[in-house]
Amino acid sequence: MSNNWTKSFSATALKSRPSPVRELLKVINQPGMISFAGGMPAPDVFPVEQFAEGAELLQSKGSLLLQYGTTEGYNPLREFLAKWTAPRMGREVGLDEILLTTGSQQVLDLFGWAMIDPGDVVIMEAPTYMAAINAFSNHGAEFASVRMDDVGMVVGELPALIEKLRKEGRKVKFIYTIVNFQNPGGATMSAARRKELTEVAKRYDLTIFEDDPYGYVRFDGDHLPSIFSFDGAGNTIYAGSFSKILSPGVRIGWVSGPKDIVRQMTVFKQATDLCSSPITQILTHEYCRKGYLDSHLPNIIANYRVKRDAMEQSFKKHLSSLGITWVKPEGGFFYWLDTGAIDSNELARRALEKKVAILPGEPFCVKPEDGVHAARINYTFSKPDVIEEGVSRLAQAIQEMKIPAK
Amino acid sequence: MSNNWTKSFSATALKSRPSPVRELLKVINQPGMISFAGGMPAPDVFPVEQFAEGAELLQSKGSLLLQYGTTEGYNPLREFLAKWTAPRMGREVGLDEILLTTGSQQVLDLFGWAMIDPGDVVIMEAPTYMAAINAFSNHGAEFASVRMDDVGMVVGELPALIEKLRKEGRKVKFIYTIVNFQNPGGATMSAARRKELTEVAKRYDLTIFEDDPYGYVRFDGDHLPSIFSFDGAGNTIYAGSFSKILSPGVRIGWVSGPKDIVRQMTVFKQATDLCSSPITQILTHEYCRKGYLDSHLPNIIANYRVKRDAMEQSFKKHLSSLGITWVKPEGGFFYWLDTGAIDSNELARRALEKKVAILPGEPFCVKPEDGVHAARINYTFSKPDVIEEGVSRLAQAIQEMKIPAK
Repeated sequence: MSNNWTKSFSATALKSRPSPVRELLKVINQPGMISFAGGMPAPDVFPVEQFAEGAELLQSKGSLLLQYGTTEGYNPLREFLAKWTAPRMGREVGLDEILLTTGSQQVLDLFGWAMIDPGDVVIMEAPTYMAAINAFSNHGAEFASVRMDDVGMVVGELPALIEKLRKEGRKVKFIYTIVNFQNPGGATMSAARRKELTEVAKRYDLTIFEDDPYGYVRFDGDHLPSIFSFDGAGNTIYAGSFSKILSPGVRIGWVSGPKDIVRQMTVFKQATDLCSSPITQILTHEYCRKGYLDSHLPNIIANYRVKRDAMEQSFKKHLSSLGITWVKPEGGFFYWLDTGAIDSNELARRALEKKVAILPGEPFCVKPEDGVHAARINYTFSKPDVIEEGVSRLAQAIQEMKIPAK
Repeated sequence: MSNNWTKSFSATALKSRPSPVRELLKVINQPGMISFAGGMPAPDVFPVEQFAEGAELLQSKGSLLLQYGTTEGYNPLREFLAKWTAPRMGREVGLDEILLTTGSQQVLDLFGWAMIDPGDVVIMEAPTYMAAINAFSNHGAEFASVRMDDVGMVVGELPALIEKLRKEGRKVKFIYTIVNFQNPGGATMSAARRKELTEVAKRYDLTIFEDDPYGYVRFDGDHLPSIFSFDGAGNTIYAGSFSKILSPGVRIGWVSGPKDIVRQMTVFKQATDLCSSPITQILTHEYCRKGYLDSHLPNIIANYRVKRDAMEQSFKKHLSSLGITWVKPEGGFFYWLDTGAIDSNELARRALEKKVAILPGEPFCVKPEDGVHAARINYTFSKPDVIEEGVSRLAQAIQEMKIPAK
């Protein structure tokens, strides 16, 4: 019944890879499975009651909700976000500087359309968000990476890297960074580094993609100003998301940036999905308008802080003695384990046999070898007692790898 | 404040064009404007009451609605569609043969990712859906076109075209067709032509993209089997949409086809928006599950039939004597006017001065000159008395173009 479609596939299709996270979503529903693999919010932090208050809009504004919306997004929500994000952005952005998207994943794709020619080099952190690698790679990007330390991307190493690439005749297009509670690395870029990054970008005439899906989920310390706020040259776009501060199910992200690039991304949104759903945009605006975004966020933060602390305790209890190291994240969703001599692909396979799902480090690195001895561990999805049990099983898997079979 | 982003834009960005339809959406809200330009459903056909019945799910299934969904889409809705579309598809497709998308516009983009290498030729009808031209063009497609007559694409001319292209060394990738009440041409491909098209595709080892957003909105005559149903070789994908049979605001389309290509499009969906909204998918499923899709469709059809008839009458009254010709569509959303000697770009400008928005033919044609003497007129959005007034104004604009200025 089926011809061989693969022979007609594009070159991009032939080199594409499915996301291991999305694939694992199918496995983690098995009974008894403990998942540290995904990046899903805990179901118990969803503000179901408050969000459902908007349900009457399905009736009272039905014709607006069910119709096409503008590609730019629902204006009252854009206006709300322009105001709400002002402290972080350093000013209130104009309506022509903000575009609503179908999740912030779409920002990656739209920016790829607008900026990347095949062969262009994108500078990423090592490790980085795997679906950013995939999105940019689909557009033909090649990659270079900069290491991170406890205060984020080591910006001081950028100039030498950029100059080396340019000497090789390669075209560096932009720098991609996840500034707060980096996924998967966990580190947060210091204010000094942010400022330094805008100076490097200006000096080398490069643009910056500041991705910040986790930034408002901070457990300890103070919020830092965005890179965008330091960037007087207008070289930065900032991507935000409702997925971690309200719900991924609404599929709403946004991008703020100079109007030229926002306009160009809007043109590409027309060709990729016309507009995002007015239903979820208007329900989300209603939720925000009533002040629930601000009033509920502390509940999310408190919930995840307890889980982060539980995982920290379980790590200390079970993993300290096994040569595994980590940095405690100040917010966000993930720990990044340094597994020492242990191959994390093998560890992930063995953990799965014990019904614990973790993600090995390779798919998070543009040079896969950088991730062979690392693993990403999510703590937001499971309850504290489940976290303890899961880390205990993970420790067993590690111990079995260290004890040679008889 | 802003550097010159355009100098960093990709080649694709530099050649991209905003959609004139999406741009016009901003204009048509001006007071007194009559819009025949868009492709929007009439607000009065939305089943607001029935759709809003699902509102309680925001509460009772809140945690499911607010969470990430699978990339493939909400299973109960996929199962519903597999059954509901079976008569048209010739059989019930399997779950691995159907993918839910963020509107059927996304099917165009995902198929582009999976199939198009820069320089590949896509064969389109003349005229065709402008956002399909844009979506495929972004992926680097070049185009060839086949004319249509009263029973759709003139399939008999395809073999010579394909052989000519291949002799020129060009790679023909697939054939794109809008089978029912073509946008913008209005014609419906006959069953004989559909069968013939699958035979041509098989002979030349090509695939077919059967786009059918309007197919269920038929005023006269009987439904025809899909091209997919004639295609024993498995060379066809079929794209459907809820936009015209329920609501564009839900942003749900689907693609049915052989599992290899559906799988590959799913991988690209991971990188472009991760998943579509479970909120709108689950509300849509609830609506369908209760039988409202079938019970409400006759209301939509009756509403639009009256408007189609009103426009037919107004055309006869005002345009017949002016040398304008047209074919009466059996369903769908559009008339395609042959404006004879009149340049439709100039006509659209003059009509806009009289507060009637129409779309000139050029952006609908891969060879723009094919559309210079044609215009697309939407009849679903305006009420019958508004249609009469709008056509009357359009006739005035035409008359003024024919009378030389003093």
